[in-house]
Amino acid sequence: MSLNPNNTLNFSGGPGALPDVVLNQVQQAIINVPEVGLSILGISHRSAWFENVVRETENNIRTLLGLPADYHILFLQGGATQQFSMVPMTMLRGKKHPAEYFDTGYWSRKVITEAMREGPVRVIWSGEKEGYRRLPTDEELDFSPDAPYIHYVSNETVEGLQFDRVLGRDDVPRVCDMSSDFLSKPCDAGKFSLIYAHAQKNIGPAGVTIVLVRDSVVQNGPTNLPAFLDYRRQVEAHSNLNTPPVFAIYVVMLVTRWLLNDIGGLENMARINQQKSALLYSTIDNSDGFYRNWGDAAFRSDMNAAFTLPTAALEDKFLQEAELAGFSGLTGHRAIGGIRASIYNALTLGAVEKLSNFMDDFRFKQHGK
Amino acid sequence: MSLNPNNTLNFSGGPGALPDVVLNQVQQAIINVPEVGLSILGISHRSAWFENVVRETENNIRTLLGLPADYHILFLQGGATQQFSMVPMTMLRGKKHPAEYFDTGYWSRKVITEAMREGPVRVIWSGEKEGYRRLPTDEELDFSPDAPYIHYVSNETVEGLQFDRVLGRDDVPRVCDMSSDFLSKPCDAGKFSLIYAHAQKNIGPAGVTIVLVRDSVVQNGPTNLPAFLDYRRQVEAHSNLNTPPVFAIYVVMLVTRWLLNDIGGLENMARINQQKSALLYSTIDNSDGFYRNWGDAAFRSDMNAAFTLPTAALEDKFLQEAELAGFSGLTGHRAIGGIRASIYNALTLGAVEKLSNFMDDFRFKQHGK
Repeated sequence: MSLNPNNTLNFSGGPGALPDVVLNQVQQAIINVPEVGLSILGISHRSAWFENVVRETENNIRTLLGLPADYHILFLQGGATQQFSMVPMTMLRGKKHPAEYFDTGYWSRKVITEAMREGPVRVIWSGEKEGYRRLPTDEELDFSPDAPYIHYVSNETVEGLQFDRVLGRDDVPRVCDMSSDFLSKPCDAGKFSLIYAHAQKNIGPAGVTIVLVRDSVVQNGPTNLPAFLDYRRQVEAHSNLNTPPVFAIYVVMLVTRWLLNDIGGLENMARINQQKSALLYSTIDNSDGFYRNWGDAAFRSDMNAAFTLPTAALEDKFLQEAELAGFSGLTGHRAIGGIRASIYNALTLGAVEKLSNFMDDFRFKQHGK
Repeated sequence: MSLNPNNTLNFSGGPGALPDVVLNQVQQAIINVPEVGLSILGISHRSAWFENVVRETENNIRTLLGLPADYHILFLQGGATQQFSMVPMTMLRGKKHPAEYFDTGYWSRKVITEAMREGPVRVIWSGEKEGYRRLPTDEELDFSPDAPYIHYVSNETVEGLQFDRVLGRDDVPRVCDMSSDFLSKPCDAGKFSLIYAHAQKNIGPAGVTIVLVRDSVVQNGPTNLPAFLDYRRQVEAHSNLNTPPVFAIYVVMLVTRWLLNDIGGLENMARINQQKSALLYSTIDNSDGFYRNWGDAAFRSDMNAAFTLPTAALEDKFLQEAELAGFSGLTGHRAIGGIRASIYNALTLGAVEKLSNFMDDFRFKQHGK
């Protein structure tokens, strides 16, 4: 049973839904965190209580991912966007060989723009000519052993395209923007030198970004960066260089607890997420072409289903009726239009079943006319 | 009546207390924002509802301050610390003449360290030799007409020192870190080229920083900064360049509404804050030297009262008994020790009366022994 009296279901591209059990605890904490006797919004970031929040959140993420010991976990501000710059500031400035970036969609393009300010970049593969309808196969990729690192976006939220494999070569550092599928499934984190993900898709509210970074990257970084852009300083300060987003980190702690204790780990979370996406894609695939997937079926995402209807007028009608029926956030991203159903961790299978039924009903109604 | 069953009073240096009327509304919004039908934590930053939140928060701040039309208001991440760098990146890089910075305490020193990475800095006055016990008088200051700008911290939270006047000269841009007294009293904002303040003292939770910046500063800034560090890009995107901290901005909207509607504006807020600090300082001044103010009385702050007791053992005892009596956050900053009572906007006169009584009682008990 939803706590929300409106019973609106959040299919938005993000910020996404959070589990009811988490929202319940957050609601209590707004007035009083019992162990402290203060509102979560007024608890000191230097308190022992908050130190424990950071430690538990870190430990939960380590456990969920089986993260090796030589990785630091940071909770930073500025979104994934800040990482678009921090990564090349740390790993690319002054390098001779280009870092290799994938251009697989809307977010990749933003990452590349910022990286090019900091050092040499080679786009190793681009989906632009094909309108970002698919991702590359291994045969299309030729990685250089000299690259300071490769960078890719694991899930393109706008186009609904998701990699189901780890790219690159083991002798070149891998950096990945996992903003939209972090902790939605198991991930071989030890194969990456740096992973970053803002919280507002699967694991918390907007305002905090999680960075997993191998110690060697931190130690080899430059020493002249502004303190807040310096991974070394952030690691030394244990995510408390300046006042961190206490509230957002607290919510991430509750969500990672939910993933561990209620869901039972990332294998289970992945199974649920795959059930959700399978149902949605079967609704699309079995619609006699009424609903059409934006991307190639081989690469479509378990997080975001982007699709179109036969006409723009039908899409408008679909969005209007969906809103009235209690489905929120289905408008496709302004970059490509159409419809997008984002089905992050906390969106239940039951919610997707309701959407699937709505889609079938909508289609039948149009055919009946 | 406090909503908090523990009735703990938050005298912390920050994050500070928020008004009960605000916390009540926030608690409801965690589950459901009625106009939207979703949790505040899951509402899209591109929604019309959030656009209105940003607009109202801006308008409230404009009204409270009487801000001229040629100022932009930004809601950024990264705390005041990010502004320590963004200001000189924008206004100092490549300049020949040094910017003039005040070294008036703990936070000033951090600002100067970051500014020096970006361009030439002259410390126009330093309280270091005197242990940061006072602020400069006008006679001690000699401003250069060639400085790209002057920078000062309006209220030093650690030492409890606050300027009660606008510094500098009208032909040189003024930049001010008002993190700890922004919206605690009226401020002649039109005399500044740029004002910044993180929210977590007087106006909201940690995770959002308010920047007021004159349009000419934005237009004259460099064009090669990373997008998120570029005021121009942030202005163009209307604080929505990448996902902003939706929740924190929403809380700031509620607090600015409270300042306008419940308090009745900044003149009233200042009067209340002065009553609070006057009571606290009279308790200190009338203690026959038992409580001693850290700073010179001429410069002490209406926001943070830093003081000491005759011995470290008595300070420990004071802090322990205060904690048991329900006063939280009174430990002085680690940089100078002692006691600090922070009395930001939402801390009521009644709470300060309780602390004052506790201080008198504690003193009498020690004398009785």
